[in-house]
Amino acid sequence: MAQAKPRVNILMGSKSDWEVMKNASDTLNQFGVSHECRVLSAHRTPKETAEYVSGAEGRDVEVVIAAAGGAAHLAGVCAAHTVLPVLGVPMESKLMGLDSLLSTVQMPGGIPVGTLAVGKAGAVNAALLAVAILANKDPELRKKLKQFREEQAAKVLNEKLS
Amino acid sequence: MAQAKPRVNILMGSKSDWEVMKNASDTLNQFGVSHECRVLSAHRTPKETAEYVSGAEGRDVEVVIAAAGGAAHLAGVCAAHTVLPVLGVPMESKLMGLDSLLSTVQMPGGIPVGTLAVGKAGAVNAALLAVAILANKDPELRKKLKQFREEQAAKVLNEKLS
Amino acid sequence: MAQAKPRVNILMGSKSDWEVMKNASDTLNQFGVSHECRVLSAHRTPKETAEYVSGAEGRDVEVVIAAAGGAAHLAGVCAAHTVLPVLGVPMESKLMGLDSLLSTVQMPGGIPVGTLAVGKAGAVNAALLAVAILANKDPELRKKLKQFREEQAAKVLNEKLS
Amino acid sequence: MAQAKPRVNILMGSKSDWEVMKNASDTLNQFGVSHECRVLSAHRTPKETAEYVSGAEGRDVEVVIAAAGGAAHLAGVCAAHTVLPVLGVPMESKLMGLDSLLSTVQMPGGIPVGTLAVGKAGAVNAALLAVAILANKDPELRKKLKQFREEQAAKVLNEKLS
Amino acid sequence: MAQAKPRVNILMGSKSDWEVMKNASDTLNQFGVSHECRVLSAHRTPKETAEYVSGAEGRDVEVVIAAAGGAAHLAGVCAAHTVLPVLGVPMESKLMGLDSLLSTVQMPGGIPVGTLAVGKAGAVNAALLAVAILANKDPELRKKLKQFREEQAAKVLNEKLS
Amino acid sequence: MAQAKPRVNILMGSKSDWEVMKNASDTLNQFGVSHECRVLSAHRTPKETAEYVSGAEGRDVEVVIAAAGGAAHLAGVCAAHTVLPVLGVPMESKLMGLDSLLSTVQMPGGIPVGTLAVGKAGAVNAALLAVAILANKDPELRKKLKQFREEQAAKVLNEKLS
Amino acid sequence: MAQAKPRVNILMGSKSDWEVMKNASDTLNQFGVSHECRVLSAHRTPKETAEYVSGAEGRDVEVVIAAAGGAAHLAGVCAAHTVLPVLGVPMESKLMGLDSLLSTVQMPGGIPVGTLAVGKAGAVNAALLAVAILANKDPELRKKLKQFREEQAAKVLNEKLS
Amino acid sequence: MAQAKPRVNILMGSKSDWEVMKNASDTLNQFGVSHECRVLSAHRTPKETAEYVSGAEGRDVEVVIAAAGGAAHLAGVCAAHTVLPVLGVPMESKLMGLDSLLSTVQMPGGIPVGTLAVGKAGAVNAALLAVAILANKDPELRKKLKQFREEQAAKVLNEKLS
Repeated sequence: MAQAKPRVNILMGSKSDWEVMKNASDTLNQFGVSHECRVLSAHRTPKETAEYVSGAEGRDVEVVIAAAGGAAHLAGVCAAHTVLPVLGVPMESKLMGLDSLLSTVQMPGGIPVGTLAVGKAGAVNAALLAVAILANKDPELRKKLKQFREEQAAKVLNEKLS
Repeated sequence: MAQAKPRVNILMGSKSDWEVMKNASDTLNQFGVSHECRVLSAHRTPKETAEYVSGAEGRDVEVVIAAAGGAAHLAGVCAAHTVLPVLGVPMESKLMGLDSLLSTVQMPGGIPVGTLAVGKAGAVNAALLAVAILANKDPELRKKLKQFREEQAAKVLNEKLS
Repeated sequence: MAQAKPRVNILMGSKSDWEVMKNASDTLNQFGVSHECRVLSAHRTPKETAEYVSGAEGRDVEVVIAAAGGAAHLAGVCAAHTVLPVLGVPMESKLMGLDSLLSTVQMPGGIPVGTLAVGKAGAVNAALLAVAILANKDPELRKKLKQFREEQAAKVLNEKLS
Repeated sequence: MAQAKPRVNILMGSKSDWEVMKNASDTLNQFGVSHECRVLSAHRTPKETAEYVSGAEGRDVEVVIAAAGGAAHLAGVCAAHTVLPVLGVPMESKLMGLDSLLSTVQMPGGIPVGTLAVGKAGAVNAALLAVAILANKDPELRKKLKQFREEQAAKVLNEKLS
Repeated sequence: MAQAKPRVNILMGSKSDWEVMKNASDTLNQFGVSHECRVLSAHRTPKETAEYVSGAEGRDVEVVIAAAGGAAHLAGVCAAHTVLPVLGVPMESKLMGLDSLLSTVQMPGGIPVGTLAVGKAGAVNAALLAVAILANKDPELRKKLKQFREEQAAKVLNEKLS
Repeated sequence: MAQAKPRVNILMGSKSDWEVMKNASDTLNQFGVSHECRVLSAHRTPKETAEYVSGAEGRDVEVVIAAAGGAAHLAGVCAAHTVLPVLGVPMESKLMGLDSLLSTVQMPGGIPVGTLAVGKAGAVNAALLAVAILANKDPELRKKLKQFREEQAAKVLNEKLS
Repeated sequence: MAQAKPRVNILMGSKSDWEVMKNASDTLNQFGVSHECRVLSAHRTPKETAEYVSGAEGRDVEVVIAAAGGAAHLAGVCAAHTVLPVLGVPMESKLMGLDSLLSTVQMPGGIPVGTLAVGKAGAVNAALLAVAILANKDPELRKKLKQFREEQAAKVLNEKLS
Repeated sequence: MAQAKPRVNILMGSKSDWEVMKNASDTLNQFGVSHECRVLSAHRTPKETAEYVSGAEGRDVEVVIAAAGGAAHLAGVCAAHTVLPVLGVPMESKLMGLDSLLSTVQMPGGIPVGTLAVGKAGAVNAALLAVAILANKDPELRKKLKQFREEQAAKVLNEKLS
């Protein structure tokens, strides 16, 4: 994780989510976006979670990414404590991640969580959406994002079926 | 709602849940159990919710009932802020209440929510389970509970099919 | 399992549930709560189940925990035979435990089952909710519960992501 | 309902199920099959249900039909108390009847419930399957069943689309 | 499989279902019920399936058991071609057997299929329900069924948790 | 319905499906494609269904469209009796059409059914897909199809939000 | 809709989505955020959709909101044609919006869509998340967002249960 | 893959789909149907996908098969860019392929996708349905299709259960 002042905070409800969420961190690193990763639980450490997220704006954080499984309240709890954009990544769980997905995405009107796909694809895409948000005021980052898309397209086009 | 010191707190995420949760309140009244009903949102009023629930033990509350719909985090957030028994009632929603149910029941190990059925049956049963819990130290209440069961059984046995 | 008079009864529909429900027993042991574990089936041994649960109150049991999978009727059948608080733990099954969950939680108004999450998390949490219920009249237990929460929070806060 | 000794018992968990289950009764009447209809709840009147079903064999009943909604345990509880063939009809409920269906059909090995479709189609078909079972030793009934099928087919073939 | 004239026909849509359906055959053997097992597909061999099932009554078959997975039409197709009681066993599939279950159980009014649980439990129970149906005119079989239940209960009661 | 020799056969399992399937017929009429609509049930009139579909090729029919609800076997049964392209339209039902959809689409390898959306959109699209298939050897029809697409696009582009 | 250069583009697949998506537009108006609303279909007007979205960056648009139902591809198609942040709102549909939700949220790694709740809550929240994104470089907007949250909280706290 | 001018185009959203979609290619080869297989993504290579599919008619392609997983938009995007018959194969994914299935089949009225089963059965059946479509103007192919069906039936009929 980068030394610079973190622009993105990645929270996860349990250390076991790290294997998946490392993909979000790796993606941000690929774009040179400084960020901080923390295990913080909506249920087991509610005060510390509230405090950490409430302080994000003051730390000049621009996007919060939160990942959790089961009754996945972490992203919603983050969104409740900040007006920064919050992105949610549902982790796979007992019910295939359907519980995590619904618990993350079905937020009531007033407190939004931008939800990504269940599991690794969601972790990567949360980072890419964070980059897209940052790129709104960072032309260099937008350029990198376009280049990423081009390379990604080229990779698809070069696939060989044998 | 009774004048006595509330033994049960009933929280709901939105005033629109009251039509259903009134059944919980009515059931508690039927047993003469003092209680307080409040609209408090896990997402829209996170601080007040945390404060209110954190203080429940100090107010000699014995059971907390929380009802919410959609990404129904209220019961989980309550459970995170108190060691009192917390009972959750999933409200019906866009996805038939499946989202509310999974968001309430699939809590991670460490922070339990005793979850009841979706909607009115769940509201009534949350009250009855609260009564059962209170009855553990209140022989009078247990007696009333047995009487309630007997009357309920009698009512079923007297049904006429025409 | 403790020698003292059991305060909690843990029932499971099949011996194969023991691997999961052992977590409930271990958790109760961790809190020094005496309990008894039994295999009793709502379908294969209906009379013995009814008898055992009907007698729980007389044995000074304070909470009944019931675990079953598939058409998981055990918790509901227990609740039908006692006015003690009954907690249900849905076991994983052919349909990911969705059948067990719905069969346990969707009880009709009148007979409540406080339902926990599918599988191991639910087993642990059933025990913790039982402890919370017992703690309502046992200050020592409530103190232990708070300590458990603190240790649990500390463990989360000390997680290192490498 | 016929005066003759009932060959089929139709149980339902709540009087509100009668509107649907009347279709089972009507179908049996159509075949001249004597039967008795009762409201009996697996949860609210467990003893009376167990007693009634346990006695079915002694009353020369040949098939038991049980209808319930939500955590629909009635058919399973019937099956637990008799070796007679038990047919289950899931009633529509909060979750579209998916809870009722899974609670009825996902019985553990050892105690079978022959489950029909959710709602009215299931009610009619439970009666028809009961007739098919009775027809195994009643050639007259089998003849009627064939005639019913022929009339039913003719009705389909005569449909006009305008 | 027994030499005697088969009283039950067990059909399955694919040879791969045999591993599960063998449990139905074994259970029938345990009760000394003669039966015949066949692979016949509703889709790949529609004529032979129709013919075989249409002829079942003439062969003095008393119950038809049909097992299939995915768009599991076999039991329904059997039911369409005979007035004998037809029992359906949904096989596990891509969607956990939910597709097989719904395709088997949700029959339209007029053509019933008594559906059992997904997979092995359903296979065993289809056989047991067939036995219960046969036992309606076979006191010896009913006696065996009661004995089976007693042994089954004893087995549960003797389980030791270590 | 057109007087010319039918190029498409539209079957539906029940007359109640006609309200939805009329949209398929109207769409074919819009393209001047001759077709025949029939109520034929996989379960209630299995022989007539098999006969009718088996004869389709001989009647120079080019596409079969089949609509059914619940355990929706009609399209699969049609596909089993012809090598013509068979398109399936799941009708809405008790379980929102999820049962109809899975029963239609989850066909085993070997017997394909091209499945369209649940309800009216599926009815229209089955007709359009049939037109696309016919258009493979009918340049005039392909031209009409392109014109339809253009008009459809124009209609979308002209929508005004007020 | 505002006269100023639109900062947000709201697309919807069908005019029938406007009743729900008007809530997104109203919310943006409430914050004084200029935006443009268009009906554009991923399927019926693919070229115009691609063109419009591809041009969004050049028009200095900062966020794209896309709403669709059923096989809801609109948000994904938008995300494929721009590197701007794309937010998706699943519309209710035949399958309660579960199809719309899964079609919107389950994007493959590489092309993110930040998905909101099904229906009206999702429409409001898409606008609020867009505001949060814009607020990253617009302190005035962030202030308004905080004020909105405070008023929203106050409204909850002032609810009276009668 | 055959040297002749391709009559069928098989697209898949990711190289990882090839293991499943190879079954479609093998099946077409078995019938001597020339075809081309390509990895093209609705999201990562939207322009190339649109171009390739738009050009299919000009290349005298007669059927397009598209396979994708998750938010499986590929078949829908193909259908949006051609009036040729488009067949969709949902790939298995995080949510068992339910997301892929709903994203493929629930197309809005106007743009049809003929959807096959999830996974390998769907891949084989997409090829067989393509063959059935081609066979409408190719008597030789229809003959082969009938032979395939006969061999397939024979194989089922020759299964031995041991």
